Amino acid sequence: MNALNFNHGLMKHSSFCNTNNPLDPEEFRRQGHMIIDFLADYYLNIEKYPVLSQVEPGYLRKRLPESTPYNPESIETILKDVQDHILPGVTHWQSPSYFAYFPSSGSIAGFLGEMLSTGFNVVGFNWISSPAATELESIVMDWLGEMLQLPKSFLFSGNGGGVLQGTTCEAILCTLVAARDQMLLRIGSQNVGKLVVYGSDQTHCSLQKAARIAGINPSNFRAIKTSKRASFSLSPDSLRSAICKDIDAGLIPLFLCATVGTTSTTAIDPLGSLSDVAKDYGLWLHVDAAYAGSVCICPEFRHVIDGVEGANSFSLNAHKWFLTTLDCCCLWVKDPRALIKSLSTNPEYLKNKATDSRQVVDYKDWQLTLSRRFRSLKLWFVLRSYGVAKLRDFLRSHVNMAKLFEGFVTSDKRFEIVVPRSFAVVCFRVLSPGMGKGASNANGTTTNGHTNGYTNGVNGHVNGHANGKGDDHDHNYMKEASTNELNRKLLESINKSGLVFMTHSIVGGVYVIRFAVGATLVEEKHVITAWKVVQEHANAILISENN
Amino acid sequence: MNALNFNHGLMKHSSFCNTNNPLDPEEFRRQGHMIIDFLADYYLNIEKYPVLSQVEPGYLRKRLPESTPYNPESIETILKDVQDHILPGVTHWQSPSYFAYFPSSGSIAGFLGEMLSTGFNVVGFNWISSPAATELESIVMDWLGEMLQLPKSFLFSGNGGGVLQGTTCEAILCTLVAARDQMLLRIGSQNVGKLVVYGSDQTHCSLQKAARIAGINPSNFRAIKTSKRASFSLSPDSLRSAICKDIDAGLIPLFLCATVGTTSTTAIDPLGSLSDVAKDYGLWLHVDAAYAGSVCICPEFRHVIDGVEGANSFSLNAHKWFLTTLDCCCLWVKDPRALIKSLSTNPEYLKNKATDSRQVVDYKDWQLTLSRRFRSLKLWFVLRSYGVAKLRDFLRSHVNMAKLFEGFVTSDKRFEIVVPRSFAVVCFRVLSPGMGKGASNANGTTTNGHTNGYTNGVNGHVNGHANGKGDDHDHNYMKEASTNELNRKLLESINKSGLVFMTHSIVGGVYVIRFAVGATLVEEKHVITAWKVVQEHANAILISENN
Repeated sequence: MNALNFNHGLMKHSSFCNTNNPLDPEEFRRQGHMIIDFLADYYLNIEKYPVLSQVEPGYLRKRLPESTPYNPESIETILKDVQDHILPGVTHWQSPSYFAYFPSSGSIAGFLGEMLSTGFNVVGFNWISSPAATELESIVMDWLGEMLQLPKSFLFSGNGGGVLQGTTCEAILCTLVAARDQMLLRIGSQNVGKLVVYGSDQTHCSLQKAARIAGINPSNFRAIKTSKRASFSLSPDSLRSAICKDIDAGLIPLFLCATVGTTSTTAIDPLGSLSDVAKDYGLWLHVDAAYAGSVCICPEFRHVIDGVEGANSFSLNAHKWFLTTLDCCCLWVKDPRALIKSLSTNPEYLKNKATDSRQVVDYKDWQLTLSRRFRSLKLWFVLRSYGVAKLRDFLRSHVNMAKLFEGFVTSDKRFEIVVPRSFAVVCFRVLSPGMGKGASNANGTTTNGHTNGYTNGVNGHVNGHANGKGDDHDHNYMKEASTNELNRKLLESINKSGLVFMTHSIVGGVYVIRFAVGATLVEEKHVITAWKVVQEHANAILISENN
Repeated sequence: MNALNFNHGLMKHSSFCNTNNPLDPEEFRRQGHMIIDFLADYYLNIEKYPVLSQVEPGYLRKRLPESTPYNPESIETILKDVQDHILPGVTHWQSPSYFAYFPSSGSIAGFLGEMLSTGFNVVGFNWISSPAATELESIVMDWLGEMLQLPKSFLFSGNGGGVLQGTTCEAILCTLVAARDQMLLRIGSQNVGKLVVYGSDQTHCSLQKAARIAGINPSNFRAIKTSKRASFSLSPDSLRSAICKDIDAGLIPLFLCATVGTTSTTAIDPLGSLSDVAKDYGLWLHVDAAYAGSVCICPEFRHVIDGVEGANSFSLNAHKWFLTTLDCCCLWVKDPRALIKSLSTNPEYLKNKATDSRQVVDYKDWQLTLSRRFRSLKLWFVLRSYGVAKLRDFLRSHVNMAKLFEGFVTSDKRFEIVVPRSFAVVCFRVLSPGMGKGASNANGTTTNGHTNGYTNGVNGHVNGHANGKGDDHDHNYMKEASTNELNRKLLESINKSGLVFMTHSIVGGVYVIRFAVGATLVEEKHVITAWKVVQEHANAILISENN
């Protein structure tokens, strides 16, 4: 024990005294309370900011110093800079007038869970590194799986299991790699160039990216064409044809990603019949329900994932429309061993008795990375703070607000709903002057041919026989292009106002404005105002178009 | 405008009234303050908990309900459950007596930045989705790059640039995929099976995993053997031989990951000469300085990354030893276009004028995933709250505390330092009774042959001619095995106490206990106590071994 008398005078100036420690509890308390007040005030005043940041590229470099300060700065100084320099460059995803992309619905419970996770700051790569992090994750994934009525085969109790990933991109890449390795074991790794991955032209871009990362030959990625007639859902027949064609060409079908709630229009791929096709040809079927999965906790929406029992894996983003802060992607798999086989590592420095006992889950082997945050805390907080009842209320309230907006659109003859609404996203557009409702027609199939639109414009051409050929067809095409341009202008004008933020997509050649209800703070009044903003900007643009 | 009079009676029961909103500002304030106090108290009392959680596998399922509650629960109830049921299962990475793995050094500033990021909850995939998120990230990456004296070619000002990833695993996978695609463009994708990836047997397991994910043939992964003599650093000569052998075999060298501060022993690969080899054969050189990169902001340590100018990419984890909460991996690349070429996506629903202008960075194209958190806030808070001066103090204090511990070990003849200390990790072990200091010898090269150890044991065999052949060799081997077992027992006993937490590795056949100083709250007294604990448990085990 005399070693303890070892002379350590060299320490004198080098260790922090307690009150100077970067994690001093009382200083933590003081500064922590300041930030809570800062954020509470931010939410109180959030409607005062332009929803879409209006700064110009490069704005921040002009405002901040060129290098790290040598000496410490006070929290007061830093917070003032957040207010003065950061907030102008923030696009306010939590604003009640945020209707862009998909929501990123924060909540008090999600925030609190994230704070605890940040405060504990554990690195939960394996069970022993923080048993609660692993066990709570398995538990909440079973809870949520049951709320969604997922088949038992996806739950731990049914020898499947769930894991929290950061994003859907990771979930897809993990499952794709598992599928790939399973297949290569059968066919030999020299055949990797023959593997084919399938989605639709509406599938999220992360599928193609994951395929590229996983070394799938880029020419073996199939984005199967969808049509407006089928509401942009993936046709099982088209899939089957594509698969047969590939097999005939000597290729090997590997992986299908079906989507419930596509990004552009929230289209729903038919899981039941797609899984039949997948089964027939031995494909791994992943279901990406990033957006719409959450709403399946409401019985009236559960049918959209009917057929999920035929899938190998299923994922949804709790950070989109489930009150859980970014990032939190819930992935369930039927066969965790397939993931583990591809993704496990076992270096000496991580070996431990619990792992050796095989009685525990080591989530590092279910994901791309080693380190992982204690994400389950925030999801657990959300599930408990709101309960099944309020979570359903919350989701339904958004669907109803989307219905409200949809009603506004349909009651104004200058506008049309481009794709039927399924959840809380409304895809609409303004029609060119003189264009009838329903005249939009990217696939050249039918138009209703009525002139029930806005007909007082100089371009107020009666569009009675739009489904003609030749000149009429060209004319239609040009009409569509100018309508797209009109909507592009309208959206830009709306977003420039800072009053609301919406985004767009193009489906079947038609530029649509997406109105996605989902911000936690949104109320009817914001939807009503948003519609007013749309109308006012449409008025202005249509008038200027006519002059 | 009459559309606004649209009957929306259906809304009556479905939208949240304000005070019931999951993001109500005043309720946020109330609950937020509660959590701050909860965490401040947690830090105050953190020494009361066993550092390594002592629960048994499955403990939590027994304590929690089987499903999500139907009705909301109060924050008070949930926090009580955190205290009663979660904390027992937490391994306390923030404890001052945490010396395991690598540190996960939280701080007030890091926490505050993370809170703001969580509160804003923006999804910063591209510039427009929150300009401040992108611009602040570019700025702090330049700041930190300058602190590290990285060559200008890694900074935005020098046409390179930095990006915040979640973990090193992601950083390696991104750069590997970029390197792979660059190479395949030259040699054709049909040659993917010929690509070879190099590291050492000390390189972090994430390299091998990344190679597997990226579709590199598993038989083309080279973990080049290191030796104790060279302090487990990667020998440029060995690398060159391996490369030549592969080229002779018709394979194509692709990627080298050099490490500054390996996981087992914080070994330092010589960047200068390795980059010469990489250049000779056209390999992409990535430098993984996950742990030790941070300390390079101290001029006296900067030399360990000398030669980094020859690398293509460089990464460090600010969430390890730089006061920034998990996750925050800083990756710099010389040629961002290579990353972008492999990882970019451009779906219609993300198109925007800023992107089209090419005046902005869209970080989604620099990483695996689309969605990304506003991570730069926490790093910016850390840099400003502490400044260069305190950050250096902080790192140096840990190095000095490691020196202190090292002194304890060397002054007790029953122990030895297995690998020379480079930073704040001490790799040590207890010697078997009768084993001389320095007798440890996994590679069968030399032993010092003195009996200056602990010689009062029943196994107090004088080990004077240990570098012999035959019987002596076998005897040595068995001695090593039993010493390893002794240290395994010692570590298990230490960690069972709950007083401290350390972990192990095996290098060159020798089981080492790793004492990693890095918890933010650590002070000299904890290091002194840790040594006491080690001695006490060693006493007990050595006595029982002798009986």
